[in-house]
Amino acid sequence: MAARSPLELRWCPLPDSRLEPLSHIMHSAGLEAVAIVPGANFRRLFGVDFHQHERPLVIIAARDRAPLAIVPNLEMPSFDALDFPGEVFDWLDGDGYRGAFEAAATHLEGVRTLGVEGQTMKVFVAMALAEAMPAMRLVDSHATISAIRLHKRAEDVAMLRRAIELSEQALEATLGEIREGMSETQVEAILLRNLFESGCDGLAFGPIVAAGDNCARSHAKARPDYRLREGDALLFDFGGSIGGYNADITRTFFVGSVSERDRAFYDTVLRANEAGRAACRPGATAHHVDDVVQCVLEASPFAAFARHRTGHGLGLEVHEEPYIIRGNHRALEPGMVFTVEPGLYRAGHLGVRIEDDMLITPEGVECLTSFPRELRLVG
Amino acid sequence: MAARSPLELRWCPLPDSRLEPLSHIMHSAGLEAVAIVPGANFRRLFGVDFHQHERPLVIIAARDRAPLAIVPNLEMPSFDALDFPGEVFDWLDGDGYRGAFEAAATHLEGVRTLGVEGQTMKVFVAMALAEAMPAMRLVDSHATISAIRLHKRAEDVAMLRRAIELSEQALEATLGEIREGMSETQVEAILLRNLFESGCDGLAFGPIVAAGDNCARSHAKARPDYRLREGDALLFDFGGSIGGYNADITRTFFVGSVSERDRAFYDTVLRANEAGRAACRPGATAHHVDDVVQCVLEASPFAAFARHRTGHGLGLEVHEEPYIIRGNHRALEPGMVFTVEPGLYRAGHLGVRIEDDMLITPEGVECLTSFPRELRLVG
Repeated sequence: MAARSPLELRWCPLPDSRLEPLSHIMHSAGLEAVAIVPGANFRRLFGVDFHQHERPLVIIAARDRAPLAIVPNLEMPSFDALDFPGEVFDWLDGDGYRGAFEAAATHLEGVRTLGVEGQTMKVFVAMALAEAMPAMRLVDSHATISAIRLHKRAEDVAMLRRAIELSEQALEATLGEIREGMSETQVEAILLRNLFESGCDGLAFGPIVAAGDNCARSHAKARPDYRLREGDALLFDFGGSIGGYNADITRTFFVGSVSERDRAFYDTVLRANEAGRAACRPGATAHHVDDVVQCVLEASPFAAFARHRTGHGLGLEVHEEPYIIRGNHRALEPGMVFTVEPGLYRAGHLGVRIEDDMLITPEGVECLTSFPRELRLVG
Repeated sequence: MAARSPLELRWCPLPDSRLEPLSHIMHSAGLEAVAIVPGANFRRLFGVDFHQHERPLVIIAARDRAPLAIVPNLEMPSFDALDFPGEVFDWLDGDGYRGAFEAAATHLEGVRTLGVEGQTMKVFVAMALAEAMPAMRLVDSHATISAIRLHKRAEDVAMLRRAIELSEQALEATLGEIREGMSETQVEAILLRNLFESGCDGLAFGPIVAAGDNCARSHAKARPDYRLREGDALLFDFGGSIGGYNADITRTFFVGSVSERDRAFYDTVLRANEAGRAACRPGATAHHVDDVVQCVLEASPFAAFARHRTGHGLGLEVHEEPYIIRGNHRALEPGMVFTVEPGLYRAGHLGVRIEDDMLITPEGVECLTSFPRELRLVG
């Protein structure tokens, strides 16, 4: 038997292929252990997700020992179906969760740092971990852990395609029902109905349906008391989801007619969107794509009206890596999916944003969204 | 001018009536400052909510100085509309948020403890606060802060009534479309479509639609490959939402026919539900209501199949105070809204849960849900 290096002695493969992505992450990032809570990473590992309210459910995988899970007892019939390859500490409503965390602490003795999903885990769960394991330091490893979802598999892409296709059908159906004089909330209700009629089983996020000056708010809320008027911009930023996979699409239309000034505003955003999409390819950096987009906006007469980066990764989370922003010198790689969504916002008058979902392929790039971008009048 | 006590000197009312509930909370709980992130408490204070992904937005109110806000620049057009009565530190995507937290830290110098919403705030936001203000201790004050929503106002109750009414309409419409042989996911799709057709503008949570043995999982996921069979239990746990206010309703039906054993199982849950609803009144404790419910289940032949507490508060969050659980000796008071949802779960065979939404009134109690509870055959 050959002598083993200390590294090999410490390296203990996790006893389940579903957890292998975590082994690789811990090994390459030098993490001793990672905690996974319900959410996108959980769903990517196990194919299912759990509710996450006030009852903590946490899975902890470590490099040098078997994994463990802290699970609310009432979730056990579902959790049992996972056939989890490690110790499970369940807790009853009547007992509270402290005991389960203390039992887990015994199992984790000697682990000094624990990577957590900082953008998913709630503070009360982190506090329960810290209280039970005061010698263990929690590290925000959100991006590191979420790298297990950075490169989409064929089945992930298929789900994203479906969510996008159904969402685009819902938008087209909605445009056919819009009339001048409708309120923003009426239009929102039509869009929601069409999303679920098309077959979506969830929402990526509460949709943004905004008209006129409200479009200038990048995350506007629909108003019940504002009615569509001729010449208004009408912005939809929305997405249905399927099995947790999210679409994220923005299109901006005009009601009845469009002024020459607003058309120039729109055309600038469209040119930025086109330039951004054309800049996407394997090996280009996220910085480069944002830079190309921002340069179009900055060189236009409307430079003062830009407010945000070009885009964000898209998958089981609506916002995830890779972030398409100047300064992010990560190279784009096949399997990455992200948005290109330049916008311009003239406060008190209008906003325009045009958002597409891009998939980097070995050969180049595929635009998963196909809804037309040419200026369109509705109502 | 009368001499002031030291307490009065420290007591500085917040400069905006919207923040007054926080003043009272800080004063009575002895908190120096509290942080509010987007979510239910934010919406209750300001009437609107913000997206909360990877861009932190935090409001901090302190007892002895003006409030402040840390806001992503792209949210400023919406945030400006709030007319926030304090200093705003906004930050651009390109700069990141660290600088805004550091600027806020200067403003907060001397504050030693900060109450946070532990079940709402994400770990990365807490870490940004801790990094910028290392001398300040974060305390999980979720229940303390959320007490601003414990007693529902007339307008809150009106919104809950509407969400419940629309959700019950959607359930009735769904039952009319169900046929033996449909899959669980088909039934789920019908329910979702009906919720948004009825006029809901969101979902309280991803609905639970489960048949047969899947009902025994208290938070089951609909299966695409299981088809409704005669004699199956069929459980719906769902709720639409309106303006952030959530319905939460569970009913269990049977497909075509029901066995005598399953009927006895159902009747036991129904008796527990009835006993629980009858036990609700001002002055009764949450403990008492759960105890009454659990006693019915424990005294039945099905005692071994109970898994969870009786219920939880309901409002802008689906799960909130008051939790209806043995050991919670909080007295129920007019304006509190919560669920009564006993269940029994026989693994591998069936589960039954019957959930109603209760409002404590000065005179007694009102059941906000009116969907019939008598055993009903569908399909």
